[in-house]
Amino acid sequence: MTKQLYDYQNDENLDLFVLIKAADVRVAKNGKKFIAFVFQDRSGEISGKFWDAGQQDIAQYQTGKVVHLTGKRELYQGKPQIKIFKLHIAKAGEPQQPEQFLPKAPVDQTTLQDEINQAIFTITKPSWNRVVRWLLKQHQDTFFTYPAAKTNHHAFEGGLAYHTVSMLHLAKAICDEYPDIDRALVYAGVILHDMGKTIELSGPVATQYTLAGNLIGHIVLIDEGIVQACTALDIDLASEDMVLLRHVVLAHHGKHEYGSPVEPQLLEAEVLHHIDDLDASIQMLRGHLQHTTPGDFSDRIFGMDGRHFYAPQQPDQPEA
Amino acid sequence: MTKQLYDYQNDENLDLFVLIKAADVRVAKNGKKFIAFVFQDRSGEISGKFWDAGQQDIAQYQTGKVVHLTGKRELYQGKPQIKIFKLHIAKAGEPQQPEQFLPKAPVDQTTLQDEINQAIFTITKPSWNRVVRWLLKQHQDTFFTYPAAKTNHHAFEGGLAYHTVSMLHLAKAICDEYPDIDRALVYAGVILHDMGKTIELSGPVATQYTLAGNLIGHIVLIDEGIVQACTALDIDLASEDMVLLRHVVLAHHGKHEYGSPVEPQLLEAEVLHHIDDLDASIQMLRGHLQHTTPGDFSDRIFGMDGRHFYAPQQPDQPEA
Amino acid sequence: MTKQLYDYQNDENLDLFVLIKAADVRVAKNGKKFIAFVFQDRSGEISGKFWDAGQQDIAQYQTGKVVHLTGKRELYQGKPQIKIFKLHIAKAGEPQQPEQFLPKAPVDQTTLQDEINQAIFTITKPSWNRVVRWLLKQHQDTFFTYPAAKTNHHAFEGGLAYHTVSMLHLAKAICDEYPDIDRALVYAGVILHDMGKTIELSGPVATQYTLAGNLIGHIVLIDEGIVQACTALDIDLASEDMVLLRHVVLAHHGKHEYGSPVEPQLLEAEVLHHIDDLDASIQMLRGHLQHTTPGDFSDRIFGMDGRHFYAPQQPDQPEA
Amino acid sequence: MTKQLYDYQNDENLDLFVLIKAADVRVAKNGKKFIAFVFQDRSGEISGKFWDAGQQDIAQYQTGKVVHLTGKRELYQGKPQIKIFKLHIAKAGEPQQPEQFLPKAPVDQTTLQDEINQAIFTITKPSWNRVVRWLLKQHQDTFFTYPAAKTNHHAFEGGLAYHTVSMLHLAKAICDEYPDIDRALVYAGVILHDMGKTIELSGPVATQYTLAGNLIGHIVLIDEGIVQACTALDIDLASEDMVLLRHVVLAHHGKHEYGSPVEPQLLEAEVLHHIDDLDASIQMLRGHLQHTTPGDFSDRIFGMDGRHFYAPQQPDQPEA
Amino acid sequence: MTKQLYDYQNDENLDLFVLIKAADVRVAKNGKKFIAFVFQDRSGEISGKFWDAGQQDIAQYQTGKVVHLTGKRELYQGKPQIKIFKLHIAKAGEPQQPEQFLPKAPVDQTTLQDEINQAIFTITKPSWNRVVRWLLKQHQDTFFTYPAAKTNHHAFEGGLAYHTVSMLHLAKAICDEYPDIDRALVYAGVILHDMGKTIELSGPVATQYTLAGNLIGHIVLIDEGIVQACTALDIDLASEDMVLLRHVVLAHHGKHEYGSPVEPQLLEAEVLHHIDDLDASIQMLRGHLQHTTPGDFSDRIFGMDGRHFYAPQQPDQPEA
Amino acid sequence: MTKQLYDYQNDENLDLFVLIKAADVRVAKNGKKFIAFVFQDRSGEISGKFWDAGQQDIAQYQTGKVVHLTGKRELYQGKPQIKIFKLHIAKAGEPQQPEQFLPKAPVDQTTLQDEINQAIFTITKPSWNRVVRWLLKQHQDTFFTYPAAKTNHHAFEGGLAYHTVSMLHLAKAICDEYPDIDRALVYAGVILHDMGKTIELSGPVATQYTLAGNLIGHIVLIDEGIVQACTALDIDLASEDMVLLRHVVLAHHGKHEYGSPVEPQLLEAEVLHHIDDLDASIQMLRGHLQHTTPGDFSDRIFGMDGRHFYAPQQPDQPEA
Repeated sequence: MTKQLYDYQNDENLDLFVLIKAADVRVAKNGKKFIAFVFQDRSGEISGKFWDAGQQDIAQYQTGKVVHLTGKRELYQGKPQIKIFKLHIAKAGEPQQPEQFLPKAPVDQTTLQDEINQAIFTITKPSWNRVVRWLLKQHQDTFFTYPAAKTNHHAFEGGLAYHTVSMLHLAKAICDEYPDIDRALVYAGVILHDMGKTIELSGPVATQYTLAGNLIGHIVLIDEGIVQACTALDIDLASEDMVLLRHVVLAHHGKHEYGSPVEPQLLEAEVLHHIDDLDASIQMLRGHLQHTTPGDFSDRIFGMDGRHFYAPQQPDQPEA
Repeated sequence: MTKQLYDYQNDENLDLFVLIKAADVRVAKNGKKFIAFVFQDRSGEISGKFWDAGQQDIAQYQTGKVVHLTGKRELYQGKPQIKIFKLHIAKAGEPQQPEQFLPKAPVDQTTLQDEINQAIFTITKPSWNRVVRWLLKQHQDTFFTYPAAKTNHHAFEGGLAYHTVSMLHLAKAICDEYPDIDRALVYAGVILHDMGKTIELSGPVATQYTLAGNLIGHIVLIDEGIVQACTALDIDLASEDMVLLRHVVLAHHGKHEYGSPVEPQLLEAEVLHHIDDLDASIQMLRGHLQHTTPGDFSDRIFGMDGRHFYAPQQPDQPEA
Repeated sequence: MTKQLYDYQNDENLDLFVLIKAADVRVAKNGKKFIAFVFQDRSGEISGKFWDAGQQDIAQYQTGKVVHLTGKRELYQGKPQIKIFKLHIAKAGEPQQPEQFLPKAPVDQTTLQDEINQAIFTITKPSWNRVVRWLLKQHQDTFFTYPAAKTNHHAFEGGLAYHTVSMLHLAKAICDEYPDIDRALVYAGVILHDMGKTIELSGPVATQYTLAGNLIGHIVLIDEGIVQACTALDIDLASEDMVLLRHVVLAHHGKHEYGSPVEPQLLEAEVLHHIDDLDASIQMLRGHLQHTTPGDFSDRIFGMDGRHFYAPQQPDQPEA
Repeated sequence: MTKQLYDYQNDENLDLFVLIKAADVRVAKNGKKFIAFVFQDRSGEISGKFWDAGQQDIAQYQTGKVVHLTGKRELYQGKPQIKIFKLHIAKAGEPQQPEQFLPKAPVDQTTLQDEINQAIFTITKPSWNRVVRWLLKQHQDTFFTYPAAKTNHHAFEGGLAYHTVSMLHLAKAICDEYPDIDRALVYAGVILHDMGKTIELSGPVATQYTLAGNLIGHIVLIDEGIVQACTALDIDLASEDMVLLRHVVLAHHGKHEYGSPVEPQLLEAEVLHHIDDLDASIQMLRGHLQHTTPGDFSDRIFGMDGRHFYAPQQPDQPEA
Repeated sequence: MTKQLYDYQNDENLDLFVLIKAADVRVAKNGKKFIAFVFQDRSGEISGKFWDAGQQDIAQYQTGKVVHLTGKRELYQGKPQIKIFKLHIAKAGEPQQPEQFLPKAPVDQTTLQDEINQAIFTITKPSWNRVVRWLLKQHQDTFFTYPAAKTNHHAFEGGLAYHTVSMLHLAKAICDEYPDIDRALVYAGVILHDMGKTIELSGPVATQYTLAGNLIGHIVLIDEGIVQACTALDIDLASEDMVLLRHVVLAHHGKHEYGSPVEPQLLEAEVLHHIDDLDASIQMLRGHLQHTTPGDFSDRIFGMDGRHFYAPQQPDQPEA
Repeated sequence: MTKQLYDYQNDENLDLFVLIKAADVRVAKNGKKFIAFVFQDRSGEISGKFWDAGQQDIAQYQTGKVVHLTGKRELYQGKPQIKIFKLHIAKAGEPQQPEQFLPKAPVDQTTLQDEINQAIFTITKPSWNRVVRWLLKQHQDTFFTYPAAKTNHHAFEGGLAYHTVSMLHLAKAICDEYPDIDRALVYAGVILHDMGKTIELSGPVATQYTLAGNLIGHIVLIDEGIVQACTALDIDLASEDMVLLRHVVLAHHGKHEYGSPVEPQLLEAEVLHHIDDLDASIQMLRGHLQHTTPGDFSDRIFGMDGRHFYAPQQPDQPEA
C-alpha cells in the first residue's frame, strides 16, 4: 500500500501523488509570485509553498488537479508543512481522479444505503414513510456522496449519509430506552433533517455554499421538499402528521439563534436536536484529536466555542 | 351616535351593548364562583367582575356573546373597571353581531384592496407579480379581515392588510429616496411578508395560534405558499428570482433570534425588515399612548423591552 | 387496588388517603385563616384550600402528615384542585408512612443497584474503579433513595439512581458507536457526576437545599469526595488518571454559566455532558406530557426556556 | 474627463493623479524598508506597495499629499491593488488640492443648506426652532463639510449634512403617514442628533476621533450645545420642551449598549432612532454593493454584524 | 425611648405613632373596599390591611400622614404584618412631622458636610476645585437630605451624602495604596458623580423619578451642571481638565448597558466606578441582612441578580 | 547602574545583557529561517528578529537563556523593536541567572511575608486560622515567587503574594468602614483565594498552565487544599465555619461565567470578589499606562473588554 501524507514523519523526504485542494497565488516581499498550496489525500491535508512561480506554474497547478510531489515534511510553528522539491501534473498512466484523494466516510456507500433502507421499514406511519422515500429518491445521487458540512464535522465525501446513519444508531438506543418516544417520527426526522444540504452545498469537491444555500438555507430547502412531496403524493399538508414532521425538521437546530425558525415543541423534536448535536460534536472532536499527540491539547476548535481538547497520555485500554 | 365604553367617565353610570371578549370562571375566597369578564367594543376593552355566578350565568355569558350591560365605570388600581349592575344576553331586535364590536382598521377594506392592487402594478418583474397575485387570491378572504398579531400591534380586524398598506407607503418613500433599491422586490416582499398569519392565527375574533402557527410559524407557512405558487404557475423555484423573493420574506424578522431562518443578505431584505419594525413599533406605541393622560407615562410595554412612554403635556400643534 | 388522586375525574367525589406535601397558612380577605394544601400520592399532586382553619387544624395538618380526605375534584383556571369536604389525620390501622405516598422511580432499587454494579465491572482502570466503589459505599444509603433534583427532572424517590442508570444505558450505546471513547472514564463519570446531590439536598421528603448545597454545590461536593477517596486509598491526586476523572465530573454542566468551574476539554467530558442533558430533558418532558391531554400543549416549562410542548392527537402506534 | 482609479480595469496600465490617504513605512523581510500606500480619488481607494523606499521617499510621500502615479492595476487575493512604476509629488501647474480627491456627498452643499433651512421652517415650536438655529450657526462651517463617521457609513466630505437631509426626507414621509407624531420634534431631533460629530471627529481629511470625542462622545457633546444655547437664548432648561428635545437627541442610539444614556421613551424618540438606523444601514450597504460584481457577495460588513450581501445578477429594471 | 415597629415581636400587641408610606385602596372579593397600608418609622416598614374602609377613611388615611396605630404584629407568609385594631390621625400635641419617621443616614448632616469640605481641600487642581464648590453650593439644600436611590441602596434621608462620604473613605484608602492615581480627580468625581440625583428624584419623602430624571437621567443632568459651572466661572470646557472631569462622571456606571454614555478610559474613571459599585453593593446587602435571622437566607435581591444571602449562625466576634 | 531595555531611546544603539523570553523559529519568504525573539529584562520586553539563522543559532538561542546583545532600538509600526547587530550566549563571569532579568514585585519577599503573617494574627476564628497557616506552609516556597497570572495582571515574579498583600490593604480599609463585615473571613479568603495558582501555573519563568490548571483550575485546586487541611487538622468539613470559608474562596470570581462554581451568597464573598477585581484592574491598567506617552491612548486591553486608556498630559501634581 502506498504511503500517504500522514504516514510520513517530520523531516522525512516524501514522494507521492496528492490532490491540490487550494492554490492561492500571492506576491512575496521580493516582488515575485508564489503559490500557497494545500495538498490533500485520504490521510488529511498539509500546506506547502511553491516559490518563484512563473505564469505556466500558476496556469497548471490549480485546485482539483492531481500532482506528483517530491519534498520534505517539516514542522513550522507547531504544524506540519511540505518543503517542495519538485512538482508535476499527473500524466497518463498515473492516478488522475480527484475522487481517489478525497477523504471518505469510514463506511462504504452500500452499507449506508442498507442501513437507511432498514430504518425506513420502521417508519410505520404511512404518510411519513412515503414522504421520506419520495425525497430520498429525489436526492439519491447526491445524498450518498455529499459531505455534511463545508468544514467542521463530517466534511468528507459521503459525510452526510454517514452522519445520518450514526444518528440512526443513537436514535435506536434512545427509543429503546424511552418507549413513549414516537420512533417513526424520530427516524423520519433523522433521515430528512440535513437532506437540504444537497442543495445548500456545491458538492464533495471544493465544497462551497450555493446561492440558495446562503439565502434560504438547508432547513427551509428540505421543508420545500416536503411541500413538493405532499403535492406529488396527494398528502394533506394541513394534517397533523405533516405539521409534526415539518416541525421536527424545522426545529432541529434547537434554538432560533442557530437558525431554526421554530424551537422544539415536541418530545421527538427535542430528541432529534440532541442526537444531531451529539453526533456532530463527537465527530468534530475525533477529527481534531486524531492528529493531536497524546499528552498535548488540540488546537482551539471554533465550532466548540474555542475550547481545546486534551489527548490523554495513557488512555484506558479500549476493549479488544 | 351611541356612547361606547371609552366615552364614559370614571364614576359615571353606563348602559350599553358590549361583546364578551373573555369570561373566566373563578372561585372567590368565600367559596362562591364569580366570572371575570373582559368587555369590548370598538373604543377599547375594560374588565369587570360578576359575583355569585350561578350555573345558568356561567352557561350563557360566554366569550363571543353580545350582552346588554348596565353598571358604573370605576377606577381600580389606576385602571378603569366596570362595576356590574345588570347583564342580559342581547335579544332579538338588539345588536347581536360580534363583528360590530370588534375594533377595526381605521381604513376601510375597499381602500386597502385598492392600494394593494395599485402596488402590484409596480411589481414589474413578471414572476414576482404572478406569485403575489396567485397568493393574494388564495388568501383573499382572510387577508383583509385578519389581525396582524394576537396582541401587541395591529391586533384588530383588518389589521393585517392595514399593516401591509402602511408599510407600502413607507416603502414608496424609501424607494424614492434611494433609487438603487429594487422597488419591485420590496413591494412584493411587503405584500407577502406576513400573509402566513392567515394560517398562523385563528381569525379576528378571540384570536389564538393554530397548531401550524405554533409548530411551523407564519414565516415558513408563506414560504410554503410560494413553493406551491411556483408549482401551480410553472415557475422555476431554483431561479435567482425566486431565491431572492423567498429570501426577502424569510429574512424579514431581521435576526435569527426573532425567528428568521436566514438573516438579511440583500439590500431589499434589510429594507423590508426595517419597514416592518418601524410600522409595528409606531402602531404599538400609538395604541398605548392613545389611553395615556397627557403628562403621564404609559404602562411598561412588553413588546418594547418593557419601556414606558411619555405623553407630553403640551404637544406642538399638529398641522391643521 | 385503591384509587389514587389522578384516577378520579373532574367533578367526581373522592375518598382516599394522601400525603400533605405543603400546608401554607394564609389570611383570607374576610380576616379568617385558611390552609393552602398540596396533597400528593404516587399518581401526582393536586392543591386544595381548607377554609376557616382554627388553631388546632393548623397545628395538626402539617407537611409530611398522612391524612384521610373526602372531597371533590374540580377544575379551576384549567388546573385540577380539590374541594375539601372532610379531613382527618390517619389513625392507627390506617396508612401512616409518608414514603408510601411519594412518587418513585419506575424501576426498583435492587435492579438499579445491580445495573450500577454491573457497570462498575467495566471500569477497567483500577484507580477509577476503586474511587467509584469507595464513594458509592460512603453514600450507599442515600444514593438509592434521593431524588435527582428538588423540582424539574427526576424529582422523586430513587430519582438520582434512576437518572444514573438511564445515563449508563445511553453511555453504552454511544461507546459502542464511537470506539475511541474511553468507556471506563465515561462510566465512572456517569456514576459519580450527581452523587454530590446526596449532600446538596435534604432527602426525598419535602426536598430542600442544604447549606452546603447552596454555598458549595453538588459539583464541588463530590469533587471533595474524590479528594477524600484518594487520601483514604493512597492514590496520587496529581496523577493524570485523577485529573481526568475530576475534570469529567467538574465539567459535566457543560458551560461555566451552568455552574461548572471548568468546561469540557476531554472527549469523554463532552460526552458525559450531552448524556446528562439528554436524559434530564427527556425525563422533564415526559413528566409534563404525561398530564397533557392529546391535542393540547403542556404548561410552559421553566427548565426548557419556557417552551410548551405539544401532545399529538394521533401518535404513531408504538411497537407492541 | 480624466480617468479615475475605478475607471481602469485589472491588468490595465494607469497614469493619473491621486491623493495619498495612508503611507505606512514597514520593513520587508530582506531588511529594506517599503511604503504601504493607500491611494484615493473620488472613485474610491486602492492600495499599492513602494519597494526599497529611501529616506527621501519616506520624507516626501506622506499622507495628504497629491502624487502623479504611473503603474498597473492588478488583482491580489481578490482585491485590486496598484503595481507602482513611478511616482512623483504633484508639481506647480499640476493638481495639488487634497480636497479635489476626496469622495463627496452626491448632493452639493447649497442644496443641503436649502433643504435644512426649509425643514427649520416646519419646526413650529419657537423654543426648538431657536435652539436649532443657534446651534446650526455655531457649527455652520463644519456641519456642511464633515463626514458622518470615521469609517462605516457616510464617511465622506459633507456626509454629515447629507445623512441629515436624507433623514429629513424619511421623516417627512413618516410624519405624513402617522399624523399623531410631533413633526417639529422629529425634525429638530434629526437636525441636531449627530451635530456633535463636528467636535467628536477631527475633520474630513484623515478623520480621527478627538480627545473629547473619545472621552465624552458626540451625544453628550451636542447635549452640552443645547445647554449652552438655552443659556444664551434665556430658555428654561427645566421646561418640558427642553426635556423633550434633549431626550430625543440623547436617546437616538436606541439602546444603552449603543451608547445612549437613556432609551427612547417618547414616540418621536423611537421614530428618530429608526430613521437614523435605516439611513445609516442603507448608505453602508450601498457603499459595499457599489464595488460588488453582480452575482457575487460583498465582503463581510463589520457594521452589519459581519453579514455579507448579495448583488443580484439580473435586478429588475429600475424605473427609467 | 419609645418602642418602634421593629422593637415589637411577632404576636405582640403594639401601640405607637407611624408614618403612612403607602395607602392603596382595593376592592375585596366581598365587593367592599379596603386599604393596603405600608407603615414606616425609622426602624423599617411593615404592611397592614384596613378592612371595610369607608369614604372618610379613604379620604383621611393618605400617604405622608402620621397616624396613631394600635394593633398586633403577626407573621404572614414568612413576613411580618400588622393586624390593625384602631387607627387615628395624629392630633395636636401628638407627633405630626413625617420627617421624624423617615429612616436616616447613620451619620448626622454636620459630620457629612465637614467630611466633604475636608475632601475638597485635597482637590488641588484649581479648575476642578472651583467646579465642585460651585455645584455643591447650587445643590446645597438637597444634596444633604436626598436619598441616593428610590429603592435599592441608600434609600433614606441623607443617603446621597452618606453614600458620597463612604466612597470618599474608600477612595482615600485606594489612593494611598496606588500612588499613581490622581487623587484630586477621584475625589472630585466621587463628590459629583450622583449629585444629579437631586434633580432626578423628587425628594426624600415618597421618592419618585421626575420627568427630567426619566428622560435625561442623573448622569447627564450633572454633566449639564458642569457645563453651566464652566460658563459661570469662565473655565474653558474644551480644556483637558474639563474633558477628564466630565469623563469620570459620565463613565461612572462602568458600562454602556448600565447607562453610561461612555465607558471608563481613564484609570481614575475605572476606580470611581469600582468604588461606587462596592459601596452600593455592601449597603444594599447590609439592608437585607439586617432583617435576616442568623441561619437563614435573605429574600432574593433584585439589584444583586436575584441572589439571596446567608446570615451565618455564628459569626466571628467582631473586634470589640 | 547598568542601562536596561527601556532606558534606551529609539534610534539609540544598545549593548546589554537580556533574557530570551521567547524564540520562535520561522521561515522567511526567501526560504531561509529566522528567529523571532522577545528579549526581556526588569524594565520590560521588546522583540527583535535574527535573520538567516543557522542550525547552531537555533540550537543555542533558546527560551530561558541569558545573552549579550548589541543592536539598535527602532520604532516599527508604532512599537519599539531591536535591530540585532550581534548576539552571544552569556559566558562565565557574565550574568547568567534568568531570575535576574525577570520583572519582580515592587516589594521584597520579606516584607510580603511579614504583612501576611500580620494579617493571620487578625484571623480570630481558630479553624480558619489553622487552615490558612497549614496551607501557607504547604505552598510556602511557591506562594512568594509565583506570578498571579500568565499574562494580564501581576504577571511577574512574586506577583501572587504582592497581589494578595495589596488586597489585604484594601480589605483592611473596607472592614474599617463597614464594621458588620466579618474581618477574619475576608482576610482568610484574601490569603487563600489565588493560592491554587501555585498548582495551576508552571512557575515564574516562561509561565504556562499545567494539566491540572487547565482541567481543574485554581479555584477547585485550593478547595482541594482546604479539604486536605481539614483531614490533616481533624476539622469538621461539614461545620458552618468550613462551608463559609470554602464558599468565600469558590465564589471569588463573582459570576458563574468567570468560572466560579457558586456565586457570592455571603456579604464577605461579595466583598472579596470586589477587592480582587479592583486590585487586578488597577494593576493591569498601571502596567499599560506605564509605557503610554502622556497625551496618548494605551493599546486596547483585552482583559478590560478591549478598551484603551488615556494618559493625561498634565496630571495633577501627586502629593509630594
